[in-house]
Amino acid sequence: MTTAPTPAATLSDREDITVAELQLAARNHGMPLEALRYAVTPVGLHYLLIHYDIPPVPVDWSLTVGGRVSRELSLSLEALRARPGVRAPVTMECAGNGRARLAPRPISQPWLLEAVGTAEWGGIPLRALLEEAGVLDDAVEVLFTGADRGIEGGVEQRYERSLSLADALRDDVLLAFEMNGGPLPPQHGAPLRLVAPGWYGMAHVKWLRAVTVIDTPFTGYQQDRSYRLRRAPEDEGEPVTRMAPRALMVPPGLADFASRERTVELAPCLLEGRAWSGWGPIAAVRVSSDGGATWADAVVEDHPAASAWARWTYRFAPPAPGDYVLCCRARDACGNEQPVEAEWNLGGYANNAVQRVAVTVRPPA
Amino acid sequence: MTTAPTPAATLSDREDITVAELQLAARNHGMPLEALRYAVTPVGLHYLLIHYDIPPVPVDWSLTVGGRVSRELSLSLEALRARPGVRAPVTMECAGNGRARLAPRPISQPWLLEAVGTAEWGGIPLRALLEEAGVLDDAVEVLFTGADRGIEGGVEQRYERSLSLADALRDDVLLAFEMNGGPLPPQHGAPLRLVAPGWYGMAHVKWLRAVTVIDTPFTGYQQDRSYRLRRAPEDEGEPVTRMAPRALMVPPGLADFASRERTVELAPCLLEGRAWSGWGPIAAVRVSSDGGATWADAVVEDHPAASAWARWTYRFAPPAPGDYVLCCRARDACGNEQPVEAEWNLGGYANNAVQRVAVTVRPPA
Repeated sequence: MTTAPTPAATLSDREDITVAELQLAARNHGMPLEALRYAVTPVGLHYLLIHYDIPPVPVDWSLTVGGRVSRELSLSLEALRARPGVRAPVTMECAGNGRARLAPRPISQPWLLEAVGTAEWGGIPLRALLEEAGVLDDAVEVLFTGADRGIEGGVEQRYERSLSLADALRDDVLLAFEMNGGPLPPQHGAPLRLVAPGWYGMAHVKWLRAVTVIDTPFTGYQQDRSYRLRRAPEDEGEPVTRMAPRALMVPPGLADFASRERTVELAPCLLEGRAWSGWGPIAAVRVSSDGGATWADAVVEDHPAASAWARWTYRFAPPAPGDYVLCCRARDACGNEQPVEAEWNLGGYANNAVQRVAVTVRPPA
Repeated sequence: MTTAPTPAATLSDREDITVAELQLAARNHGMPLEALRYAVTPVGLHYLLIHYDIPPVPVDWSLTVGGRVSRELSLSLEALRARPGVRAPVTMECAGNGRARLAPRPISQPWLLEAVGTAEWGGIPLRALLEEAGVLDDAVEVLFTGADRGIEGGVEQRYERSLSLADALRDDVLLAFEMNGGPLPPQHGAPLRLVAPGWYGMAHVKWLRAVTVIDTPFTGYQQDRSYRLRRAPEDEGEPVTRMAPRALMVPPGLADFASRERTVELAPCLLEGRAWSGWGPIAAVRVSSDGGATWADAVVEDHPAASAWARWTYRFAPPAPGDYVLCCRARDACGNEQPVEAEWNLGGYANNAVQRVAVTVRPPA
């Protein structure tokens, strides 16, 4: 077996993308940015990051709830569906979104800006299940184990991550078996996944098989080696947790197929987009049409739910034909604001630098 | 406005992928190859190639059937749904599938092998609509115009392509408003698209607005400049039409996240995949485990429909640990067989060279 590079071990100083990175980009899915016009992202446009392969669902699938609990539970999908259900729109973003904009570039899935989506997840509250199982007093974390198995950084593993007991017991944490009103699709974790609103995507474990209450902090690969903000390989680093604020816009005007360059008519144009933060509601979105030299406030609509992005609009009235660089920048109610320049880290996580969309404004035909 | 490169005008001798190509790979979607296990590809796993942007559906949408007809028709979606409907599973592949394996590499959407899928399309036969409109005697082609507008090769355009009258009148050509039993999703052409079984994806015009019967051959961009098999820019070239035969396999064993390298246990292993051709049923699939030096016949199941891929299986029993290169190779009933080496052309179309999957067989743990 070849020991493969890990996201935290390989960097490229070249702008160009390797064929290994292209292999990842060809199978993982971004959300085309014009889909920001949907409050709920249609199935098939939501972003998708699959570490290994989509696993088949065993015919005798059941979920185990075990570990430091009074009563171990084993539940079929029918048993889960029979419980009191909940639905919530949740904005989810890959922790690696923006990675391919970093220099040097961490070698992993080379996201530009498209690794986001909002789905209406349906399922049951995790808390009710944990209460039924009876969490013992020495519990500190809850571990979520997926059925997806593969090799990463030389380590053979099933994908698994933990949440602290306090985070796992939050009212908004779901075990979801529905997406946008239909059954959970295979690529989003069928038959059951975790949904932890506010967190980057790595926390929302897909293809869930086991929920295990543990009495020592989990130190597996996806917790202690991957998904940490490090400047150098020897750093311990801070864990990646909740989503940093970000605003994105629907690129206006006409796209060029090959270059994705944009052409806009000389006329007032309503820019629209969505903004979100895992730390609190969006307090402001500002827009620049001169690459960030000057900024003006966009109109921010109410979040449809605490867990879902907010729509924003801005009237862009270009004074003359020419080249413009449109930017948008979100600030949340906790005071976190998007940086203009990317903050680099070894894994390429949480790069929420402002979006820049170059447009050419042309005179009326 | 910048005059952008066209697929037939720019080549790269470098293996690495440019950021412009990555922008395309980040918004277009491949089908992860493990999804070959589904006879009908789940929504969201079917490949997706969008030339410009997904257009919004106007509230007053209707389809116009006009040109060289006795009676021009204008039909709402409700009127289309009220007609006798049909459903068919249809395998569809992008004409650019395999492009990124060519050297020098034509600069466009950099597909490796994932640009394929099979959906159950629901709609109405095109032929019935054309018969109702009454095709005039001087008709030679039928032109299909989408709502998607953009710039390509310096030409501002709506996406449009034609079929010969004979091809348009085939019994199997549909106007589809359903996919896999649900409404057609935005990214697949909502509210209505053309489905022309057997043809590469460029023929299946999405976001359909108009069907126009014409008395001279269509010479627009997507017919005469793009989608032609040329060796040099000045060549007239042959048009890209039906899908060349291809077999693909589900890569066996465990994937490495970053490299996608595969590890397989030393034990017999059932390889499975799908094979298709736009020219006729699959007559044979052969498999090699030594990179194409020797071949053996796979078991090919019946096509579920003439328009859908056939499942194939092969028992791979590695004799010893080590490195193997698995290949599969389809031949159709018309005698077309996949080449071992790619046949180069300027646009990077129809590269159906055999798939090669490198695997490391390891001893039992």
